[in-house]
Amino acid sequence: MSFIAEAKSLSISDPLTLQCGAVLPSYELSYETYGRLNADASNAVLICHALNASHHVAGVYADETGAIQPKSEGWWDNMVGPGKPVDTNRFFVIGVNNIGSCFGSTGPASINPATGAVWGADFPVVTVEDWVTTQAKLLDALGITQLAAVMGGSLGGMQATSWTLQYPERVRHAVVVASAPNLTAENIAFNEVARRAIVTDPDFHEGFYRRHDTLPRRGLRIARMIGHITYLSDDVMNAKFGRRLRDAVSNAVQRDYHFTTQGIEFEIESYLRYQGDKFAEYFDANTYLLITRALDYFDPARACGGDLSAAFAPVKAKFLLVSFSTDWRFSPARSREMVRALLDNHRRVSYAEVDAPHGHDAFLMDDSRYHGTVRAYFDKEVAV
Amino acid sequence: MSFIAEAKSLSISDPLTLQCGAVLPSYELSYETYGRLNADASNAVLICHALNASHHVAGVYADETGAIQPKSEGWWDNMVGPGKPVDTNRFFVIGVNNIGSCFGSTGPASINPATGAVWGADFPVVTVEDWVTTQAKLLDALGITQLAAVMGGSLGGMQATSWTLQYPERVRHAVVVASAPNLTAENIAFNEVARRAIVTDPDFHEGFYRRHDTLPRRGLRIARMIGHITYLSDDVMNAKFGRRLRDAVSNAVQRDYHFTTQGIEFEIESYLRYQGDKFAEYFDANTYLLITRALDYFDPARACGGDLSAAFAPVKAKFLLVSFSTDWRFSPARSREMVRALLDNHRRVSYAEVDAPHGHDAFLMDDSRYHGTVRAYFDKEVAV
Repeated sequence: MSFIAEAKSLSISDPLTLQCGAVLPSYELSYETYGRLNADASNAVLICHALNASHHVAGVYADETGAIQPKSEGWWDNMVGPGKPVDTNRFFVIGVNNIGSCFGSTGPASINPATGAVWGADFPVVTVEDWVTTQAKLLDALGITQLAAVMGGSLGGMQATSWTLQYPERVRHAVVVASAPNLTAENIAFNEVARRAIVTDPDFHEGFYRRHDTLPRRGLRIARMIGHITYLSDDVMNAKFGRRLRDAVSNAVQRDYHFTTQGIEFEIESYLRYQGDKFAEYFDANTYLLITRALDYFDPARACGGDLSAAFAPVKAKFLLVSFSTDWRFSPARSREMVRALLDNHRRVSYAEVDAPHGHDAFLMDDSRYHGTVRAYFDKEVAV
Repeated sequence: MSFIAEAKSLSISDPLTLQCGAVLPSYELSYETYGRLNADASNAVLICHALNASHHVAGVYADETGAIQPKSEGWWDNMVGPGKPVDTNRFFVIGVNNIGSCFGSTGPASINPATGAVWGADFPVVTVEDWVTTQAKLLDALGITQLAAVMGGSLGGMQATSWTLQYPERVRHAVVVASAPNLTAENIAFNEVARRAIVTDPDFHEGFYRRHDTLPRRGLRIARMIGHITYLSDDVMNAKFGRRLRDAVSNAVQRDYHFTTQGIEFEIESYLRYQGDKFAEYFDANTYLLITRALDYFDPARACGGDLSAAFAPVKAKFLLVSFSTDWRFSPARSREMVRALLDNHRRVSYAEVDAPHGHDAFLMDDSRYHGTVRAYFDKEVAV
């Protein structure tokens, strides 16, 4: 059983000018902390979240009804906690929900102070850089000048990378897992199909579905199903589901086909529909659009004509990068691009390519080689 | 410029009992033929089509208004014709539209003779085996006892394979390109998401959209976008689109981001939306469900407890198999499974793994190594 976590909130009343040019007059940040900040505030570790996660990184809530997502356990509970690879007996760990999200921080489901109505689709486009700016405000409020480490997987890894560029003096280490320096055309394509499924759902109402007392559930289901396929590897799907029919006795002893185009025939279909249905009940459609767009837009090399080595010139942090052999969404080749660009700048880089079958999802799994690598890095390199 | 093709039709009034148990009282088959059947009817080559193609394999229509799809040129015109790899100066080539399709043969948009109304979702589920059965009826009508070769790519390759199992005496050669002995869980998953997008479109009306004078265009667009991504390789998408913004001067000289979640930002988005829009205007939604389900169901090893070598025991045909290195939908490994199972049965097999960047779509492309392989096989092995 894990420890008890408690969500907190910080109100920031300084207006925030976003990268898109819009100004947020004020905003709330939901966050959690685990462990104790030491006397010289040198043991802080910031964990950045990916698409559908939140500030609730580790632990469980005392009251299950306070759970953000269907389960109360933090999304990286196997990584962060007392005695875990990121050990809260030694480190003061911070989880923060990004603005634009739907789990507590200001986002499209919040009230727009200028109108008194829910923001909906009027919520401005936010970027990885904007998130990092707000995360720095949270550190200011917590009295933390410099992070021992910033860490994240996937989109969270992009935030960790951006930290080392936006605030090079404020980060000693960046731990970037299953991430990339930008999205490929194929990545953007999958995001775009998911967004089109949401936007063309008649219940989307141009993003003002709450005014119509409805939710674009059909679109969200499709978006989640697409996402889910890309998080897994072909191998793990074959191992887990294969061509097994739903309600078959086993892989070897199958039943007859039902011959249906709309009903469920294969186990994989049942699984995907379930994932889609669950997601459509707890995730906000406008948030999905915003977060996938933040993924699309992130591209630190863009300002340097695509030259990542030039873009990484300001970096001062040391890096640990981890990738997974079967991750076809953020393939090892993308991590290696970052390693090379950091080495071009004579930065200190550790890199582990873990042979894991789970595809992109591997970054959330409890794999001993992966966790061992992170543990060793925190013990020996980040060590405070 | 290609030669002039002409669509024909065959009415079959023998009732057809389908694999699902339903009976089609009668049906039409649209087909085309190119070249001349020789005196002993030994030079016939049947071309089987994949998801969104038809009997219009090669040539152009004299009257462009007769075009089934937006362009009048046959879908495999680079492969089939006078002097082409499948040379219609020597072979009598037959293209046939499968039942359940929407391009002329009996399908869900046809009239159900029992009710006098459009079949819609009442059209029975058809399988690869059913298609082969109807193709054999067409050969009977054309006076062809044995095919010199049966050939197809992707789902078309599954039909070619099934021919060698259902009618081993009627096929001398099978040419199976970019295909597989069955779909993986991931393949089925992509099909299922596409189907869910169609079925949950409010304009689908349980498959009776024509009665409501509407079409489930939103769902079809999403289905096509998903399909399109999986037909291409990550590499070719990066080469063709990369992260180029729409209306940017070039990859090097980009414009500023527009910061939009619903508008088009990247070139790849524009391309996918265009493909989706086009498809939604000419393809039938019920047909999409039926054809993807036929793909899911095909699994000749199923009757032998998953043992493909045992399943291939009845095969008498010689095989040419071709796969493409960047095809992640029907990977070379799947073709190799078939090669092994055929060799286990001491069948004669030629196999080419072509290093091509175009992903699954490579089977429709004019690649000299690929076309050279097919040409040599027809010249030297199929030779009549």
